[in-house]
Amino acid sequence: MTTATHPLDTALQLQSTATPGHYQGRTTPDYWNMVGPFGGITAATLLRAVLSHPRLLGAPLSLTVNYAAAIGEGDFTVRAEPVRTNRSTQHWVVTALQRDADGQEQVTTTATVVTALRRETWSATDLPMPAVPAPAQCARVETAFRSEWLRRYEMRLVSGALPTQWDDSGHTSLTQLWVRDAPERALDFCALAALADVFYPRVWLRRARQVPAGTVSITVYFHAGESDLAATGTGYLLAQARAQELRNGFFDQSAQLWNEAGQMLATSHQIVYYKE
Amino acid sequence: MTTATHPLDTALQLQSTATPGHYQGRTTPDYWNMVGPFGGITAATLLRAVLSHPRLLGAPLSLTVNYAAAIGEGDFTVRAEPVRTNRSTQHWVVTALQRDADGQEQVTTTATVVTALRRETWSATDLPMPAVPAPAQCARVETAFRSEWLRRYEMRLVSGALPTQWDDSGHTSLTQLWVRDAPERALDFCALAALADVFYPRVWLRRARQVPAGTVSITVYFHAGESDLAATGTGYLLAQARAQELRNGFFDQSAQLWNEAGQMLATSHQIVYYKE
Repeated sequence: MTTATHPLDTALQLQSTATPGHYQGRTTPDYWNMVGPFGGITAATLLRAVLSHPRLLGAPLSLTVNYAAAIGEGDFTVRAEPVRTNRSTQHWVVTALQRDADGQEQVTTTATVVTALRRETWSATDLPMPAVPAPAQCARVETAFRSEWLRRYEMRLVSGALPTQWDDSGHTSLTQLWVRDAPERALDFCALAALADVFYPRVWLRRARQVPAGTVSITVYFHAGESDLAATGTGYLLAQARAQELRNGFFDQSAQLWNEAGQMLATSHQIVYYKE
Repeated sequence: MTTATHPLDTALQLQSTATPGHYQGRTTPDYWNMVGPFGGITAATLLRAVLSHPRLLGAPLSLTVNYAAAIGEGDFTVRAEPVRTNRSTQHWVVTALQRDADGQEQVTTTATVVTALRRETWSATDLPMPAVPAPAQCARVETAFRSEWLRRYEMRLVSGALPTQWDDSGHTSLTQLWVRDAPERALDFCALAALADVFYPRVWLRRARQVPAGTVSITVYFHAGESDLAATGTGYLLAQARAQELRNGFFDQSAQLWNEAGQMLATSHQIVYYKE
């Protein structure tokens, strides 16, 4: 019997170098988007660098990734540096670089990460999971366009499908869908970071017009601990996203991810460039 | 006639050094919180460093500030570096440092900033300003505790006051208030960044219990351009904040800031430590 490596684990492979916190990675066709890797896989890869660092304290609490340039096919470098370590939190600055045609290393992506040791405390939600049909009752999304990374996710739509008519008739930006890795894979922090970016651009829905768009910066707040991830396993997440404001070339997106038991695993925000 | 410098402008004063992008600042008692400066003034100061840089392209689009340690009374250094400049966006890494008792510079704060040249495009909101009473109809908040920075803002409460009974009776985390600088000051990007952090900890309201709490990371997305700021002038902003999830020592906060004309100026998110 052979066990195939999951495409996500292939994408997240980082080779240590002589310098602690400096890693070599390589893009994979499995998560290719239009002009570079799916933003979620880049976020997950930068988080992986932090989680691989020998000086890591705790688990991910906050992740912000800024997409400065598209990553080209091939090798890239990730540098993760713990710039301040406190008793229960650790602050990271992360940079991804790639050589340009002249062999010069150029920054493609920056990130900051906070990791933390968490303890059980009084807890509550102020945004319960919406009542929606179960995954099995929701039709699987057939992707209307050909980005390879979309095949790495099983998506079952609740509401807010990709418009079929691009006629400027849109009136909402809300999408709700059940989603998990395809093939199935037990949830971990890196997979969760990538899942926070699975939504097509909100401007397409709000406007019912397909304009060029791309994420500039994404932030993910992790509410799940290891036990929540283990309890979620290979189950579906309910992923919900909406824009708040779309103005002069940029819109924001607010997103939430719950597991099937209704536990909030992560909340996320991003600011996205759009044209016209 | 003498014109007094506004306390905000005093707090934001940065002295250039021989190295471009490296600045010297000094804390001011005007914005003192419990154990260091008000988080909003630190965010505004780091943004000011970017806006002061000779290589600046465009205006603020996104700002993420990570509070690694409290800044002590006295001098600090801010380093702002444009790590990637594209045709219409620029990516910044910013660090604030302060000398410890041994004279060693230690990182107190990290930030990433994206600035952008914006053009007029199709625009829409998906979160209109809620219908609330006008500022003059709302009572001015008398601060129940003694942080100096609270005196730098005029707050007029719409809903979600600081509880008067700490009896665990809370059921919502939503606060809405009108707010502006005190004394009045025409709005700019730095003032707006600071205003995104004016809310008391959501856990106090949701739980009706006053536990130790402090912001770990805040992100501000700027939807306003210079003309929106000019149109707002010294007017009030409607500031709204709520938590989404409060779990095991950390909660998130989602916030929106509109001007009196109902224009969304900024959206913001933060993750906040709390005890017990």
